Amino acid sequence: MSESITLLNPLDMHLHLREAEMLASVLPFSATPFSAGVVMPNLKTPITTTELALSYKEQILRLSQGTFEPIMSIYLTPSLNKEELLLAKKAGIKILKLYPKGATTGSENGVKDILCDKTLHIFELAQDLGFILSIHGESNGFCMEREYEFLPIFASIAEMFPRLKVIIEHMSDRRSLDLIEKYDNLYGTLTLHHITLSLDDLCGGMLKPHLFCKPMLKTKKDQQALLQAALKAHKKLSFGSDSAPHTESAKLSGAAGIFSSPILLPSLVALFESHNALEYVQSFISQNAQAIYGLKDFPQKSITLKRVPYNVPEYIDTPLGKLIPLLAGDSLPWRIQG
Amino acid sequence: MSESITLLNPLDMHLHLREAEMLASVLPFSATPFSAGVVMPNLKTPITTTELALSYKEQILRLSQGTFEPIMSIYLTPSLNKEELLLAKKAGIKILKLYPKGATTGSENGVKDILCDKTLHIFELAQDLGFILSIHGESNGFCMEREYEFLPIFASIAEMFPRLKVIIEHMSDRRSLDLIEKYDNLYGTLTLHHITLSLDDLCGGMLKPHLFCKPMLKTKKDQQALLQAALKAHKKLSFGSDSAPHTESAKLSGAAGIFSSPILLPSLVALFESHNALEYVQSFISQNAQAIYGLKDFPQKSITLKRVPYNVPEYIDTPLGKLIPLLAGDSLPWRIQG
Repeated sequence: MSESITLLNPLDMHLHLREAEMLASVLPFSATPFSAGVVMPNLKTPITTTELALSYKEQILRLSQGTFEPIMSIYLTPSLNKEELLLAKKAGIKILKLYPKGATTGSENGVKDILCDKTLHIFELAQDLGFILSIHGESNGFCMEREYEFLPIFASIAEMFPRLKVIIEHMSDRRSLDLIEKYDNLYGTLTLHHITLSLDDLCGGMLKPHLFCKPMLKTKKDQQALLQAALKAHKKLSFGSDSAPHTESAKLSGAAGIFSSPILLPSLVALFESHNALEYVQSFISQNAQAIYGLKDFPQKSITLKRVPYNVPEYIDTPLGKLIPLLAGDSLPWRIQG
Repeated sequence: MSESITLLNPLDMHLHLREAEMLASVLPFSATPFSAGVVMPNLKTPITTTELALSYKEQILRLSQGTFEPIMSIYLTPSLNKEELLLAKKAGIKILKLYPKGATTGSENGVKDILCDKTLHIFELAQDLGFILSIHGESNGFCMEREYEFLPIFASIAEMFPRLKVIIEHMSDRRSLDLIEKYDNLYGTLTLHHITLSLDDLCGGMLKPHLFCKPMLKTKKDQQALLQAALKAHKKLSFGSDSAPHTESAKLSGAAGIFSSPILLPSLVALFESHNALEYVQSFISQNAQAIYGLKDFPQKSITLKRVPYNVPEYIDTPLGKLIPLLAGDSLPWRIQG
């Protein structure tokens, strides 16, 4: 039984860093262990332009002192146009993030009719310019069926734009796994919470508001299928934590999102080890994303974890209030060295 | 459009009144509009004997000054025996309440193996003595399937003891409706929340901890099917609110239960009216239960509701903390006169 494991260049392909004081508070949990991460654009002032993205990127680089590469994304709104996309490409921005209007936190500016001419035109430009299209894919139907009901839209986009890489973000439904097998240009990201938790964890016993997220946690069958795909580091799947900090009071008022960044690498190592899949954790945490997103430039990191118990803090203080991390108060068998 | 409606002898066939200060705080919300109600026995000290039931009954009668008949139930534990059942019968107690161990709040003393010889013997005695068996029917499986998975146990009991009236408490799954059609001696109670809310209301948008209950709210199809059964006052169904007071802080810590007693009659009248089913509300709120449970002795009440807006309080203060009622802060088109 190995007493240490070293992960090279961990990448978090779905990350909420927020702004201002919250950004300063949560950034170290990603910037220290990860080489790079895809930064979500659904801020209070959404990142809808290259100018906003570059200014946000600069803040992150300044705070992380260049130790972490923020992979910027632009919020796809109906007003996005060719000029803006050309600017974005020139600035090295690779990712467009689409939220169906109203689907989740900060999606008020999202797209209502995804397959309308205007949006299809944006997809076409995105394909021609080589962007990656990341989608929070949920319908406005019954909460347990929203991802499934959205799959035909993924299928349509993947079919209409075969050279456009499309990502099913934070997969939660096992039926999404079938769809990525059907289309060469369709990929997914997996969170730690969707591969380890089900609806029973949220509300099967006492209600656990800190485990409330979108897309909703699904059945144990879904969780198990997603976990199996992660454990074999399925080549079309990258790790994306969707770590989403909300203060304790916002969570108790019903905000959706799980703050997982403080525990990601120790948890993933423990999880893969407990399933005899440690050999696949490196691909899941880095190589898959490098291949799918064509990533090259990020700070090189070698992160060593030791088999030493890590007691997850009960909370993390910030100037805006307490953050309750996933697994708060639990003990993990691995900790990051240093 | 009628400006008033009078309900005779409303009955709440599933009610949590708690003890001590909480009992004193919540009792008026039931004792004023309702003639009688089935009082649940899952107190901190569970009501497992006739002696405890009679002492609890006396407290309720004293506090309600005899204006409300508490229909007592005894908590069915593996140690219940013939002697105790004979005592209960002599004392006029009609109802045995069975909780599968661990299924919900205060079910720690419940029955682990429901179809074991010991429990079957209690059922046989209960049948011979003319008790009614009320069951919180949930398996320990996936939270959305627990009631469905428990239905074979209802079927077995109904089949083995054809003269024992068995109640599926707080039905939440539409498939339970099919089962009561199959067995003459199988009945159900319906809550206001299960006939008006689905899982989407709990967690389809923001998480609403005050709508968290057991059994879990199910799909819209389930809610609609249960509502349709209520609206026609299906003869095998009684109204049982399952109103369950927990303080705001207990709710935010994850306690299951919805405190609905402050709004029941106005809500039911508004609901039945909005579905053109006002003619059935009287049967649903009283006659069905009288027939199923063989009820005769309760204070006669004639409760008039006027078409005058009723602003549901945001909270109700108690010495133990705030209670947040169902529909807190909403306005209902009907209010109880007086």
